[in-house]
Amino acid sequence: MPNETPDIAPVVEETATDIADMEVRGAATIADAAAAALAAQAQRSEADSSEAFREELEAAASALYETRPTAVSLPNALRYVLRGVEGETVEAMRESTVARAEAFREDLEQAQETLGEVGANRLRDGDVVMTHCHSTDALACVEAAIEDGKEIEAIVKETRPRLQGHITASELRSMGVPVTLIVDNAARRYLDEADHVLVGADSIAADGSVINKIGTSGLAVNARERGVPVMVAAQSIKLHPDTMTGHTVEIEMRDEREVLEETAYADVAADGDVPDDGLTVENPAFDVTPPRHVDAIVTEHGQYPPESIVMLMRDLFGETTTDPWAV
Amino acid sequence: MPNETPDIAPVVEETATDIADMEVRGAATIADAAAAALAAQAQRSEADSSEAFREELEAAASALYETRPTAVSLPNALRYVLRGVEGETVEAMRESTVARAEAFREDLEQAQETLGEVGANRLRDGDVVMTHCHSTDALACVEAAIEDGKEIEAIVKETRPRLQGHITASELRSMGVPVTLIVDNAARRYLDEADHVLVGADSIAADGSVINKIGTSGLAVNARERGVPVMVAAQSIKLHPDTMTGHTVEIEMRDEREVLEETAYADVAADGDVPDDGLTVENPAFDVTPPRHVDAIVTEHGQYPPESIVMLMRDLFGETTTDPWAV
Amino acid sequence: MPNETPDIAPVVEETATDIADMEVRGAATIADAAAAALAAQAQRSEADSSEAFREELEAAASALYETRPTAVSLPNALRYVLRGVEGETVEAMRESTVARAEAFREDLEQAQETLGEVGANRLRDGDVVMTHCHSTDALACVEAAIEDGKEIEAIVKETRPRLQGHITASELRSMGVPVTLIVDNAARRYLDEADHVLVGADSIAADGSVINKIGTSGLAVNARERGVPVMVAAQSIKLHPDTMTGHTVEIEMRDEREVLEETAYADVAADGDVPDDGLTVENPAFDVTPPRHVDAIVTEHGQYPPESIVMLMRDLFGETTTDPWAV
Amino acid sequence: MPNETPDIAPVVEETATDIADMEVRGAATIADAAAAALAAQAQRSEADSSEAFREELEAAASALYETRPTAVSLPNALRYVLRGVEGETVEAMRESTVARAEAFREDLEQAQETLGEVGANRLRDGDVVMTHCHSTDALACVEAAIEDGKEIEAIVKETRPRLQGHITASELRSMGVPVTLIVDNAARRYLDEADHVLVGADSIAADGSVINKIGTSGLAVNARERGVPVMVAAQSIKLHPDTMTGHTVEIEMRDEREVLEETAYADVAADGDVPDDGLTVENPAFDVTPPRHVDAIVTEHGQYPPESIVMLMRDLFGETTTDPWAV
Amino acid sequence: MPNETPDIAPVVEETATDIADMEVRGAATIADAAAAALAAQAQRSEADSSEAFREELEAAASALYETRPTAVSLPNALRYVLRGVEGETVEAMRESTVARAEAFREDLEQAQETLGEVGANRLRDGDVVMTHCHSTDALACVEAAIEDGKEIEAIVKETRPRLQGHITASELRSMGVPVTLIVDNAARRYLDEADHVLVGADSIAADGSVINKIGTSGLAVNARERGVPVMVAAQSIKLHPDTMTGHTVEIEMRDEREVLEETAYADVAADGDVPDDGLTVENPAFDVTPPRHVDAIVTEHGQYPPESIVMLMRDLFGETTTDPWAV
Amino acid sequence: MPNETPDIAPVVEETATDIADMEVRGAATIADAAAAALAAQAQRSEADSSEAFREELEAAASALYETRPTAVSLPNALRYVLRGVEGETVEAMRESTVARAEAFREDLEQAQETLGEVGANRLRDGDVVMTHCHSTDALACVEAAIEDGKEIEAIVKETRPRLQGHITASELRSMGVPVTLIVDNAARRYLDEADHVLVGADSIAADGSVINKIGTSGLAVNARERGVPVMVAAQSIKLHPDTMTGHTVEIEMRDEREVLEETAYADVAADGDVPDDGLTVENPAFDVTPPRHVDAIVTEHGQYPPESIVMLMRDLFGETTTDPWAV
Repeated sequence: MPNETPDIAPVVEETATDIADMEVRGAATIADAAAAALAAQAQRSEADSSEAFREELEAAASALYETRPTAVSLPNALRYVLRGVEGETVEAMRESTVARAEAFREDLEQAQETLGEVGANRLRDGDVVMTHCHSTDALACVEAAIEDGKEIEAIVKETRPRLQGHITASELRSMGVPVTLIVDNAARRYLDEADHVLVGADSIAADGSVINKIGTSGLAVNARERGVPVMVAAQSIKLHPDTMTGHTVEIEMRDEREVLEETAYADVAADGDVPDDGLTVENPAFDVTPPRHVDAIVTEHGQYPPESIVMLMRDLFGETTTDPWAV
Repeated sequence: MPNETPDIAPVVEETATDIADMEVRGAATIADAAAAALAAQAQRSEADSSEAFREELEAAASALYETRPTAVSLPNALRYVLRGVEGETVEAMRESTVARAEAFREDLEQAQETLGEVGANRLRDGDVVMTHCHSTDALACVEAAIEDGKEIEAIVKETRPRLQGHITASELRSMGVPVTLIVDNAARRYLDEADHVLVGADSIAADGSVINKIGTSGLAVNARERGVPVMVAAQSIKLHPDTMTGHTVEIEMRDEREVLEETAYADVAADGDVPDDGLTVENPAFDVTPPRHVDAIVTEHGQYPPESIVMLMRDLFGETTTDPWAV
Repeated sequence: MPNETPDIAPVVEETATDIADMEVRGAATIADAAAAALAAQAQRSEADSSEAFREELEAAASALYETRPTAVSLPNALRYVLRGVEGETVEAMRESTVARAEAFREDLEQAQETLGEVGANRLRDGDVVMTHCHSTDALACVEAAIEDGKEIEAIVKETRPRLQGHITASELRSMGVPVTLIVDNAARRYLDEADHVLVGADSIAADGSVINKIGTSGLAVNARERGVPVMVAAQSIKLHPDTMTGHTVEIEMRDEREVLEETAYADVAADGDVPDDGLTVENPAFDVTPPRHVDAIVTEHGQYPPESIVMLMRDLFGETTTDPWAV
Repeated sequence: MPNETPDIAPVVEETATDIADMEVRGAATIADAAAAALAAQAQRSEADSSEAFREELEAAASALYETRPTAVSLPNALRYVLRGVEGETVEAMRESTVARAEAFREDLEQAQETLGEVGANRLRDGDVVMTHCHSTDALACVEAAIEDGKEIEAIVKETRPRLQGHITASELRSMGVPVTLIVDNAARRYLDEADHVLVGADSIAADGSVINKIGTSGLAVNARERGVPVMVAAQSIKLHPDTMTGHTVEIEMRDEREVLEETAYADVAADGDVPDDGLTVENPAFDVTPPRHVDAIVTEHGQYPPESIVMLMRDLFGETTTDPWAV
Repeated sequence: MPNETPDIAPVVEETATDIADMEVRGAATIADAAAAALAAQAQRSEADSSEAFREELEAAASALYETRPTAVSLPNALRYVLRGVEGETVEAMRESTVARAEAFREDLEQAQETLGEVGANRLRDGDVVMTHCHSTDALACVEAAIEDGKEIEAIVKETRPRLQGHITASELRSMGVPVTLIVDNAARRYLDEADHVLVGADSIAADGSVINKIGTSGLAVNARERGVPVMVAAQSIKLHPDTMTGHTVEIEMRDEREVLEETAYADVAADGDVPDDGLTVENPAFDVTPPRHVDAIVTEHGQYPPESIVMLMRDLFGETTTDPWAV
Repeated sequence: MPNETPDIAPVVEETATDIADMEVRGAATIADAAAAALAAQAQRSEADSSEAFREELEAAASALYETRPTAVSLPNALRYVLRGVEGETVEAMRESTVARAEAFREDLEQAQETLGEVGANRLRDGDVVMTHCHSTDALACVEAAIEDGKEIEAIVKETRPRLQGHITASELRSMGVPVTLIVDNAARRYLDEADHVLVGADSIAADGSVINKIGTSGLAVNARERGVPVMVAAQSIKLHPDTMTGHTVEIEMRDEREVLEETAYADVAADGDVPDDGLTVENPAFDVTPPRHVDAIVTEHGQYPPESIVMLMRDLFGETTTDPWAV
C-alpha cells in the first residue's frame, strides 16, 4: 500500500460520481464508462515510475468500484482492464492500458450482437420459446434467429409484479413474432407447447447459479420436469466476480407497493403504510436458479454449460483474491 | 327405457331452472338443491309401481343433471341419492329416497367442518402453510387448527389473474393468522420457509389428478423439488364421477381481459378487442396436478393418498356406466 | 377336504384338455371356456348336498387351473364364478353358479368395447399416441376415439424381436390413423411429439406393476422423463391374482432364434446351435414397469391409478388365501 | 351418551391395568389381550337391553383404549371387535362379540406366518436383502423364503443408536443366512449388492407413510436412487387408525444417553447431565418414509402399494369418526 | 481479405477431392489427411511474405473444409494446425506449420490407444459393461482393461436398425470377452447386471450433449434411473467446434429401407416406394443425450465430466468466431 | 531414460523414509515435506548439465512418490514443483526449482485460511450447517464465518464407526457454535432444519466425484431430495491427479473391530477372530459421491461446481501422461 494517496484524474472522479448518482446506469453502460475512465487515468497520468503508475490505476479502480460495489459489470470492467496492463516503463503501461480499455469497449459494443448469433444457433425454424421478464440479451437471440430466416413464436409470461412481459411482448411483436401472453401461473400448462425456455440473467455466479428476475427458478424446475431445455442469455459482464470467492449475490427486496398497487390494498399502499399489522408483503426482485436446472448459458464467447462458466469467468477476469486489482 | 315420459314434480323443474340460471350456484349449494329436489320428487310421486317410481326418479335426475353437466357436485348428489333407493314397494322406495337425500344433505352441512378437523390434524403447532387461490375447504383446515390451539402462519400467493389470494389473506387475518403476501413468481423462494402447501380443488379425477386454479401444478412441482408436502382439501362432492370412465375435465378458458386489465393494454381490452393481431392471450382457469406431486387429499371422510381417491369415489357414487343412474 | 374324489363333469375335462393343448388360447378365450365349464359342471352335478356340490365345483376349478397355472385369466374366471356361488340348497347353488358364469361371460364379451370407451375418453382430438407391441385392448381405445370423431395419430415402435409393431401399424392404418413407424431405439426422440404412451398389458400385479412386452418399462421411464403420460389398457382378466400374495410373475425366456434370425448369425441359429461358445443370447418376453412410471390403467371397470388396482383385483376376485377357491 | 356409568367387568379393568403398567406389551400381545377382554366383557355382561349391552362394551373399549392411546394395535383390536357386534338381542350380540373377538385372536396368531409367506413370495432364490433395525415381521419373510428352499443373503445395518441390527444378524445366522454386517453409513455403498430393502414398521399411516426406526427414510431415499425396491413387512395391527382423520404419529424422543454412552461423553451422560451447555443431543426413535419411496407393504392380507393401504385400514377397522367405537 | 486468390498446392486440391469423393473417410482418416495437406501446403508455399503465407494456408484450410463441412474431425484438424502457426518469417511459419501438423498426426495415431488406457482405468476387474452400437473408441477401453489383466464381461445391445451390435459382439468375442446379446428393448432389464454403460460418440457438443447412435439417450436415461454410470469414449477430434457458437448438430435421416427390410414391408421397401400412403417411416441416425445423463467423457487427454468438455474443446481448437481460421 | 542412476540427495531419501514410515503424515504435511525435499535436491545438485539436473530431480520425485503412491497430496506437490522448473542452465533451473517449491509451501500454509474465507462467504448469518465426520477444511469455513460476525449453528452427525463427529462437536463448541449431536440415522429428519451440508474430502476425482468418509454419499442423496445444498471444503492438494487418466480411487477397507467394538461381539473382536463363520463385517473407510449431488467445492482457489474441478486440477498439476513428471 502506498504511503501517499495516488493521484486520480478528475475525469475518473466525474465518472465515479455519475455512476453513484445513477446518471450512468445499466450493466453495459457502467462497464463502458469504467473502462473509459481507466483509459483516461492512464493517459493523464504523470506518474514517474511504473510502481506509481500502477498505484494510481488501482486507486482509480477502487474509487470507481466503491460507487456501486453490487453492480456486477463494474468490477468486471475494472478487472479486465487491469489484467492487461503490461510493460516495464510508464509509457509502455500507459499504452497497454489504453489498448486494453479500448478492446474491452469494442468487445462490449459487439457483445450483444455476437451473443444473439450464438443463441440463435440453438433455435430451429418453427421453434416456440417461453420467456420470463424482459432481457435484451434474450431478445437478441430471437432477433438473430429471425434474421437467419427462422420462424419463431413466443409464449410470454407477464412477469408480476412489474409486468415486464408486456415490454417483451411488444418488442417481439415489432420483430413480427407471434406472441401468446399468459399469466405466470399458466407457465407449466404452456410448457408442453414450448421448445425452449429463454431468459436473461441479472448475474451469474461461480457455482453456476443464475440470478435472474423472481420466478425464473420456479420456471426452470417446471421446465426440467416437462422436458423443456432452459437457455440463459447473458453477456460476460454479467458474470459475478465476487462469487468466485464464495460470496452470494445479495437479493434486492423491493417496495411492497409493486405488489399491492392496483389491488384492494392499493390505496393503503399508496400512503406508504403497511396495509395491516399482521400482513407482511415480501417482494424480492430476483431468485437463484441452480445449474442443474439450466441447460446452457449463451454469451458472446459462445455457449457453456452453467457448471463450466466459472472457467470463462477466470479466463476473463482472473482469480479473485483479497487484493482484487492484483494480476 | 320407458315408453312415456315419466312425471317429474314441478319443484324439480324449478330447481333445474334455478341451477341453469345460476341462481343456485356453488358446489355445495347445487348439491344440496339437487338432493332436496329428488326427495321432493319421491314425496310427491304418484307412481303406481316401483318401476314407475324409479323411472320418475331417474327422469328427475336426468333433468337436473342436464342443467349443468360440468358442475362436478351435481351428478355426485344425484348418484348418491339414487344409490340409496331401496325397497320393493313404492312406499318403501319413497321412504328410502327421502332418508337418503336427507342423510346426504346433513352430511353436506357437516362436511366442511369435519374436513377441517381432518386437515387440522396434519398441521402441527408453529407450522407455516403456503396457499394458492382461495378455498373455503383449505381455510377450514387452518381454522380448525387454530381452534385446536395451534399457532399457524401463512404465506399467501396473490394468485393472478384474479388475485383471490387477497381474499385468502383477509380471511386468514380475521382468524389472527400472520400472513406474508407474495407474488406467484416468488413461490419457490418462500417454499423453504413453508411446512405445507395447502390448496383446495375445483375437482378431483379418478386417476388421482387434482384440477385446481391455474398455477397449482407448477407450485406442486416446486414443492416436491423443495421437499415440502402438498395437501389438497376437498369435500367429496368435488370427486368427479365422469373421470371414472376416463373423461378428462374440461378446462374453462376465461376472458383475456382478466389478464390485460390494469396493464398497458387495459384500454384496448376494455373495448373487448384483441389488443394486437399478433398477440393472443390465453387465460385458462385451472390446471391439472398429477397425483405424484400431491401427498394427501383431505376430505370429510378422512385423508387419502391421491392414488386411492378413486376408491372413495366408487364407494360413494358407484361405478360409472353408460347408464349413470343405474345402481 | 373331501375323502373321495368329487365327480367332475366330462365337459370340464374336455375343456381342461383343450386349454392344456393350447387349442383354447388367448386370455379372453381361456377365461370364457373356464367359466362355461364351471357352469356346465353346475348344471350336470348330481351332488346330493350343498357341501358335495361345492366340493365338485372346487375340484372342477382345480382341474381347470392346473392345465395352465401361469395363464393369468384362468384363475380369475374360476375365482370370479366361485365367489358368486350362493344358496343353501343344491338347486339354489346351481342356479347362482350358472348365473354368475353367464354374467362373467357377458361381461367378458363387452369388456374390450367398454374399456375402449374409457380409454378413448382420455384421448383428445388431435392427440398423438406412441404404441409398443400389439394390444387389442390398446387399439380398442384408439378405435373408440375415432368413432367419437376424434383425429388420432400414432407413432408405432416396431417392437423387436418379433416386430409386432407392424401388426399394430397395419390395424391402425385400417382405422385410417396416420402412422409413423420407428425403431425402438428412436422412442425417446419421438416422445416429444407424443401426447400419450399407450400400451396393453400381459398381466398386472397387486403392487401396481405392469408386466408387458419387453421394452415397456424402458419406454415408460423415458416417457416420465419427457413429461408424457403413460396409459395401460388392460381388461380386468389381466389382473394377476397370485400377486396379491406376493408372487412375482414369471418372465418367459424365449428362443434366441427370434433375436438372431435375419442377422449374420441366422444360419447358425437355424441349426439350433448356440452361435458361439462365448456368446449368450437372452430373450425375455416381458418386463416389469413399476407403478410410479404409469399414469393410469384403463379397464372395463373404469380407469385406476396403478397403485389402487389391487382394490379392483380384490373386489372382483377376492383375497387370495392358501385355499384359492374359498370365498 | 348414557346417564349412568356402564358396568365394566373386573377382568377388563385388570387387563387395562396390565397394559398401563406395561406388563402386557408388544403390539400383538396388547391387541390379543384387548380382544380377549372385550370377549370377557360380553360374556359377563348382565345388560338387560341391547342398548345397555353396547354401552357397556363401548365403555370397556374406552377404558382399555385410555391406558395407552398411542399403542397402535390397541384401537385396532377394539375397533375390529366392535365392528362385528351384530344382532338385535343381548344374547345375539354376546355371541357375535365373542365370535368376533375369537376370530381376531386366531387371525392374529396366524398373521405373522401368513405375512411371512406373502413376503417370501417377493424374494427369489439367490436374492440379497438389506435390513434396518430388527423386525420379526421382516424376518418372517426371510424365514418363509428359506423354508421354500430359496437361498437368501443379508446385508445388515447395525442401526445406531441401539444396534438392533446385531439381533437381526444373530437371528438370520440361526436360520443359516449368510450375513454381512455394516455400519449405517455404509448403506448406499452396499445397496448396489442388494436386491431388496426389507424393513418392518412401527406403524403405517393413512397417507401411505411408513413410521419406522430412525434411519428408514434415509435408506429408502437411497434405495430409490440406486434402483433397489423397498418392501415393508407389517401386520395389519400396525395400521394406525387415527391417521385416517389426519392425525400424525407422535415420534418418541429417547434418552440422549443412548447416543452418548460408550463415547467420550459416556461418563457425563451416565450422570444424566446435559454434557455441555451448548451441546444438545436429539434422539428421535422413528422417522417417516413417504409412500413414494416404498414399493410394497406386505401384510397378512396380502401385499399393497403404500398408497392403497388406507383401503385395507378402512376395510378392517372402519372409517374413524369423532365417536371411534361407533360402527 | 486478399485481393487475389491465394495459391493452393495441388496436393491440397487432391486431398480435398478425395475427401469430397469419400475416398478418404472416417473421422481419424479425414483429420490425418487434412493435417498432412496443410503441412504440404506450407512446405510448397512460394509466398514472399508472412501475410501471403498465412493467406495461402487459410485458403487451403477453407478449401479442405468446404468438401464436407459436417465432418466433425475436419475443422478440428484444420483449426488445430492453424492455431500453431507461429513466427515472423515465412521460413519460421513454414517450420512451425509442419511441426504442428506432424504433432497432430502423431497424437492422432496414439489417441485411441491412450484413450483406451484412460477408459480402462475406470473399469474394475470383474465389471460388466453394456454397449450400444459399435465404437472402436469404446472397444479400445475394454481391450486395454483386458491387457491390464482385468476380466470384463459385456451385454451387447443389437442396435437396430443396422445391428452394429453384432460387430461389437464379434470383436469382443475375439478379445475373449463373454458376451450376452440382447435386443434393444431388453436394456432396462439387464441394466441391473451392468456396472457401466459404455458407448462411443458421433460428436460432442459444447453444451455437454453427446450425439451418438439413435437409442443412446434412451439408454442413458434408464441407466441413470437404475443407478448405472454412463461412460462415453470419444477422441478429441469428435468435439464439435461449431457447437461452441450454439450450432446444433444436424441429425441425418436415413433411408426407411433400413427399418423395413426383412419385414413384411421388405418387398415394397426394396422398390423404394413409400409402403402405404398413411405410413411414414422415420429413421434418424443419431440422437442427443444431455450431459446430466452422462457421467464421464473419456478422451486421449483424460476423462472429463460432460459439462467441462467445452474447456478442452477451447484449449485444443480455440474459440470459434466468425472467421474460424483466425487465431 | 538415463543409463545411470541419477544422484539423489540424502535429505530426499530421509524424507522418503519418513513418509514411508508415516512419521510424516497428513495430506498437508506430506505435501510440504515433498516440496522441501525437491528444493533440497535442487540446491545440492552437482549436475553438470541441465539434462542431468532434470534427471536427478525426476528421480527424486519418483523416489518420494513411491513411498506412498496412494497419498493424494504427494504427487500433487511433486508435479506442481516440477512444472515450474525453467531455465536453460543448471543455475537457472536450480533457482526456479527452489522458488517454485517455496511458493508451493507458502501457498499451502495459507490454503486452509483462504479456503475458510471462501467457504464462509457461502454461509449467511443464522445458517445451520450439518456436518459429517471431522474436517479441518470444513471447520475453517465455519470459523471464518464466525470471525465475520455471523451466527452459525451446527447439526453434527456422530459418524460411525469412529465417531469423529464428537471431535467436530467439540471443536465447534470451542468456537461457540451451538451444536446438536445426532446419530447418522437421524440425518434425513434433521435436514429440514439445515441450510447446508458441509463436509470435507479425502480426495476429489477428475470426473467430479468426491471421495470422503463413508456415509457422505448417502447424506448427499438425501440432501438433494430435501432441497439442501451440499458444500465440500477441500484444499487443492486433495485433487487426485491419477483420476485424470481414469483411475478410480482405491477405497481402504478398515478393521472390522471398529464396527464390532463396544457391541455384543466386542470380546470376540478383541481376539481378532471373525466373530462367526457366517458373519462378515465390511468396513469401508470412504465412499464416492457423484458430482450431481454436490453443489460446490470450496478450495483456496475459490469455489467450483464439481463438474469443473478437473480444470483447476489441470491448471495446477498439468495433464497426466504416462510420464507423470514430464511437463
